[in-house]
Amino acid sequence: MKYPPVQYHDYLQMDKILGSQTLRSEELGKKAHDEMLFIIVHQTYELWFKQMLFELDSVLEFFSQKTVDESLMGTAVSRLERIVEIQKFINGQIDVLETMTPLDFLEFRDFLYPASGFQSFQWRCLETKLGLKMDQRLSYNQQPFYKHLKPEQQKQITEVLQQPSLFDLIEKWLERTPFVQAEDFVFWKDYQRAVENLLESDKQVVNNNTRLSPEEKKRNLDQIDASLATFHALFSEEKYLGLQEQGYFRMSAKALHAALLIQLYREQPVLQMPFRMISALIDLDENMTQWRYRHSLMVHRMLGRKIGTGGSSGHEYLKAATDQHKIFTDFFNLTTFFIPRSQIPALPNQLKQRMGYHYLMDPKT
Amino acid sequence: MKYPPVQYHDYLQMDKILGSQTLRSEELGKKAHDEMLFIIVHQTYELWFKQMLFELDSVLEFFSQKTVDESLMGTAVSRLERIVEIQKFINGQIDVLETMTPLDFLEFRDFLYPASGFQSFQWRCLETKLGLKMDQRLSYNQQPFYKHLKPEQQKQITEVLQQPSLFDLIEKWLERTPFVQAEDFVFWKDYQRAVENLLESDKQVVNNNTRLSPEEKKRNLDQIDASLATFHALFSEEKYLGLQEQGYFRMSAKALHAALLIQLYREQPVLQMPFRMISALIDLDENMTQWRYRHSLMVHRMLGRKIGTGGSSGHEYLKAATDQHKIFTDFFNLTTFFIPRSQIPALPNQLKQRMGYHYLMDPKT
Amino acid sequence: MKYPPVQYHDYLQMDKILGSQTLRSEELGKKAHDEMLFIIVHQTYELWFKQMLFELDSVLEFFSQKTVDESLMGTAVSRLERIVEIQKFINGQIDVLETMTPLDFLEFRDFLYPASGFQSFQWRCLETKLGLKMDQRLSYNQQPFYKHLKPEQQKQITEVLQQPSLFDLIEKWLERTPFVQAEDFVFWKDYQRAVENLLESDKQVVNNNTRLSPEEKKRNLDQIDASLATFHALFSEEKYLGLQEQGYFRMSAKALHAALLIQLYREQPVLQMPFRMISALIDLDENMTQWRYRHSLMVHRMLGRKIGTGGSSGHEYLKAATDQHKIFTDFFNLTTFFIPRSQIPALPNQLKQRMGYHYLMDPKT
Amino acid sequence: MKYPPVQYHDYLQMDKILGSQTLRSEELGKKAHDEMLFIIVHQTYELWFKQMLFELDSVLEFFSQKTVDESLMGTAVSRLERIVEIQKFINGQIDVLETMTPLDFLEFRDFLYPASGFQSFQWRCLETKLGLKMDQRLSYNQQPFYKHLKPEQQKQITEVLQQPSLFDLIEKWLERTPFVQAEDFVFWKDYQRAVENLLESDKQVVNNNTRLSPEEKKRNLDQIDASLATFHALFSEEKYLGLQEQGYFRMSAKALHAALLIQLYREQPVLQMPFRMISALIDLDENMTQWRYRHSLMVHRMLGRKIGTGGSSGHEYLKAATDQHKIFTDFFNLTTFFIPRSQIPALPNQLKQRMGYHYLMDPKT
Repeated sequence: MKYPPVQYHDYLQMDKILGSQTLRSEELGKKAHDEMLFIIVHQTYELWFKQMLFELDSVLEFFSQKTVDESLMGTAVSRLERIVEIQKFINGQIDVLETMTPLDFLEFRDFLYPASGFQSFQWRCLETKLGLKMDQRLSYNQQPFYKHLKPEQQKQITEVLQQPSLFDLIEKWLERTPFVQAEDFVFWKDYQRAVENLLESDKQVVNNNTRLSPEEKKRNLDQIDASLATFHALFSEEKYLGLQEQGYFRMSAKALHAALLIQLYREQPVLQMPFRMISALIDLDENMTQWRYRHSLMVHRMLGRKIGTGGSSGHEYLKAATDQHKIFTDFFNLTTFFIPRSQIPALPNQLKQRMGYHYLMDPKT
Repeated sequence: MKYPPVQYHDYLQMDKILGSQTLRSEELGKKAHDEMLFIIVHQTYELWFKQMLFELDSVLEFFSQKTVDESLMGTAVSRLERIVEIQKFINGQIDVLETMTPLDFLEFRDFLYPASGFQSFQWRCLETKLGLKMDQRLSYNQQPFYKHLKPEQQKQITEVLQQPSLFDLIEKWLERTPFVQAEDFVFWKDYQRAVENLLESDKQVVNNNTRLSPEEKKRNLDQIDASLATFHALFSEEKYLGLQEQGYFRMSAKALHAALLIQLYREQPVLQMPFRMISALIDLDENMTQWRYRHSLMVHRMLGRKIGTGGSSGHEYLKAATDQHKIFTDFFNLTTFFIPRSQIPALPNQLKQRMGYHYLMDPKT
Repeated sequence: MKYPPVQYHDYLQMDKILGSQTLRSEELGKKAHDEMLFIIVHQTYELWFKQMLFELDSVLEFFSQKTVDESLMGTAVSRLERIVEIQKFINGQIDVLETMTPLDFLEFRDFLYPASGFQSFQWRCLETKLGLKMDQRLSYNQQPFYKHLKPEQQKQITEVLQQPSLFDLIEKWLERTPFVQAEDFVFWKDYQRAVENLLESDKQVVNNNTRLSPEEKKRNLDQIDASLATFHALFSEEKYLGLQEQGYFRMSAKALHAALLIQLYREQPVLQMPFRMISALIDLDENMTQWRYRHSLMVHRMLGRKIGTGGSSGHEYLKAATDQHKIFTDFFNLTTFFIPRSQIPALPNQLKQRMGYHYLMDPKT
Repeated sequence: MKYPPVQYHDYLQMDKILGSQTLRSEELGKKAHDEMLFIIVHQTYELWFKQMLFELDSVLEFFSQKTVDESLMGTAVSRLERIVEIQKFINGQIDVLETMTPLDFLEFRDFLYPASGFQSFQWRCLETKLGLKMDQRLSYNQQPFYKHLKPEQQKQITEVLQQPSLFDLIEKWLERTPFVQAEDFVFWKDYQRAVENLLESDKQVVNNNTRLSPEEKKRNLDQIDASLATFHALFSEEKYLGLQEQGYFRMSAKALHAALLIQLYREQPVLQMPFRMISALIDLDENMTQWRYRHSLMVHRMLGRKIGTGGSSGHEYLKAATDQHKIFTDFFNLTTFFIPRSQIPALPNQLKQRMGYHYLMDPKT
């Protein structure tokens, strides 16, 4: 009424969308029925990648601000959760693709050479914008990954590589968390003390256990000492830097301490959305990983395994990349540093209040 | 090597596919973030509809032949099963769409007027090609369903309405089943006798049951008689035609008898693929139904319910259409006529042999 | 080490769990292979119902308090979301059950008489605890639903019927929402004005539209008036009570106004978790509905449809119950009363601050 | 009526099933809410493992016969497909388990020591019955895998290890395939010739390609020679045995040739069910693999990664086992030996007829 009317078909540009499937096997004179499925599977993947990038870009924009407005946190989390929902969905798309048998694929496979999923520009953008670094990538055929892309795409991706990734922005955002250190509370000091008490009491249990042989006692005590050393690494600047260099951590200690605080005190109102943010990032990373893994299985099923050729097969490359291309591994590893809730140091009352809503505040304070 | 090389991006016509999302809200000066999701959800749906139609068309072609070559049965079943797999997959897409809240939808909803899913040409083709008849359709706004389509599409759909549907072709194919009547075996006669014996013995159990009061006895016996009448309807030409007229059956008696035979003797080699064909059609129909139902729930969630307006809401229309638009209902209802396997009449040996493979055949016969 | 060691098998009470499948067909001398699947499908359903009830009970406890501690909101929402995740999961279980064909079911169906899913005590508890009222239930065989349960279960369920349901507690919690009315802000007054302005400007557009015929103009204006009447119903106590009596609304006006406020201003920090709470309840209700619907389809597939018997079939009962047994329908219908975000009245600054975190507060205020 | 009545609750042994959840955290005085989820997730897994074993056992029985009756093929395939459906379903159960956060797990984790999924007797049976061999298993803590089981279970599993596995029985069944060699047709001879022709013509294309540099030519020709060598390995007894020793193949050459024949001529009526059998085994294996992989991701998420301890973490063990524990790898690798359908040697007419149904047979033959 208020706006010029629009038809479903035109609004969705159906002529273009439904007119973009040209069977190469047909063009080359040997029509292969299943090529249509192959094309449509990849086109829908790419449409979903576009959507994921669209959401990701908007979140990147939010987090590029000096401070993230609290009223945007709900939206930011929802958009990441939407990406997660899309991932869950498209991870199931392989079930559809696998209705194509290897023999059916063989009918048109040669016509597609050298096109390959490695040439998906949007997937590369997605990985890069999430935070996959150049030097973290598994090399493939001794060339930087973007050499498989079209020239203009190569230019674009090198620009994307310069921009701050979601990993970078989340790290900065975590480093700004205001509650890690307050007047009378230095989170990691209290936490370190709690850990030491916990492990000390574990040692006493071992020492008082008359059923254990001296060897067993020693083994148990050594184990506790190893745990203690692990925890110290998190809190000692020097040791942390060492572990970072060895590739055990990627994120800064400051950011990781904040992430730990958010995990441990997630029920505080002000930490509820940050907690969901971190959870969404873990989900997102896990789903990327699953996507790669399922694709490596599918490639094995479709193409088998060459005997005795020099180069690694697509299936093996994908399998190797599966874990190595994880981005927020620090958040997975962080759970190593959790202690049972009953041992977590209590927050000072004043700090707790600062973490609550204004309307809950005692007006006398 | 043998063929001109092709790049992923060009092969998949990415420029067209990824260049077909124009946010109308942006064009009209009020960019709404979630419109992108709305467009991509519908575009991927339509791509999958294209794939479903592509598979369906190939199956229609197979079944349009005078006789269906047995070596095509495996392919035909696999293609229907692929459609089923696609349906299962896209039924989950609503989970993604529902990450858009009603308030977010409202930001661009007015800009889309009067575009609507009712205008999906491919969905209408799909329903029609499967066998949804004009007069079976729930009317919407007192107009034939195709009035919402574009003029050229209206022409096309009326042509599709003239062509034999999958329902029609399956009916014909079933009617040609060679084993329903053989020299010394008329399936439905034997089956009728088996049913009568079964129900007769049920009656005796009731009559001999001393714990039952006369009223209970009567009620039980009446129930058995009702069952018997039901079975007779299937085998009496006259009664069958009557039930067909009332809309209880759509398929011919001859075809339905064959479907019953296939279901009951599905373990015979020659019936294994026909059994899978019928199962796939039941799955396919059930998934169409679920798709409609989930969409009716989603529409309720997105648009709510008007109070006191004359017209039915989209949500209520969809809900009503959900069941009424089922196509292979006969196959669902057919189970009413099954009897336990132990009571099913045995096949004569010679017939059984004819249902087996050539290589199994006793060379003396 | 600290606690007595435990073995997986004993901890999970595997002897009991895996020793609880007795094929009745085997006991009665006619072993039917598929009965095992039937039993295990139902046992796993019931285990998940136990888990859902366990989560639901904990949420009911939180909301039974006079005020719900804000630090519990995250946990409450997570537990509802867990129920939703369980529902999504078990809704897929029908795919497994449907690998049993009707003919296979028939091999043991008679042995189970009169056992039926209607006798699931936990499902009844779940519905009742969520808020399904006695008089809202579709009657089945002219008896209250609990007559199918075992005597001690009948006693228990009548007690559950007396206790406040999740619906009741959520209603009370919404009624306590502190922001619906503040010093200089009465939400529904402002909102009503915004709605009136919006519809008034729509009327002007119609009146100024020279392309419309007098009839079209009238139809459009009438439609706008109908919308206006709908909105008034929400804000006029008298009209609201009338609509409540007609069954259009179930929740109190006060609670629904708060739900509307939460939906419209969900980005305010203090409303982010309440918004997620309402979303989870909508998901939960939608999934219950889907569960019923898929079961009605499955029953149709398994049992077919009787011809000409008086009683309604299981399939038809389930289909009818599907929508009628929805609980939070008000939240679905509420979207009818949303207006585009750009038209929503802005919150006064002071109120906005009260909805934020303490740490964001300007110390001068 | 005919049988003693039974109630849902009693039939399903609900008292035992629903009475088998004892929170150890509660017994030990520190009730942890999420332990219930943990228990129920594992109990439902084990119920599904029981179902999978039940189906698998019935298939093992079919294939233990000297010849498998063709009328059992449909049932055998359906039961394997049911296992696949169960796997797909329970692979999604991790989404439910992951609603438990690591911190929540930590509240009761210590109480469970040393219970672990490694102690699942049924899972071990499943792997073993499918064909996972003792020496193929990744060792864990330098002990045979069954040392973690209870003593009576250890005895049982060593017995299972003696029995023929599904792998063994499928291998024997394939070796019996009657069509691999007929009067005037020796499949692998014809196939080898077809492969040689194909690769020879590839060589000519390379040699005639004037755009290639001598180096490129050489590389291409070397690649074709490598392909040829690969194919020869499949058909030369000696080379095959060599590859088998290196672990590239597990199945006998005879069986694998039959599998190749089934794959290439799957549209022949008599091969349609065998083709589905092989497809189901590939699906089943792929799903086992996915199950392991998702569990390794989940363990990483729950427990993190220890720094600098000697033993491998659960997460890394699971990841390593993921691929190594695959059973029907030969079927995946077999696709390496496929050639495009147009190049596959045609079957002699007489053989083709023998692969068809009796009823299709030309009576004159």
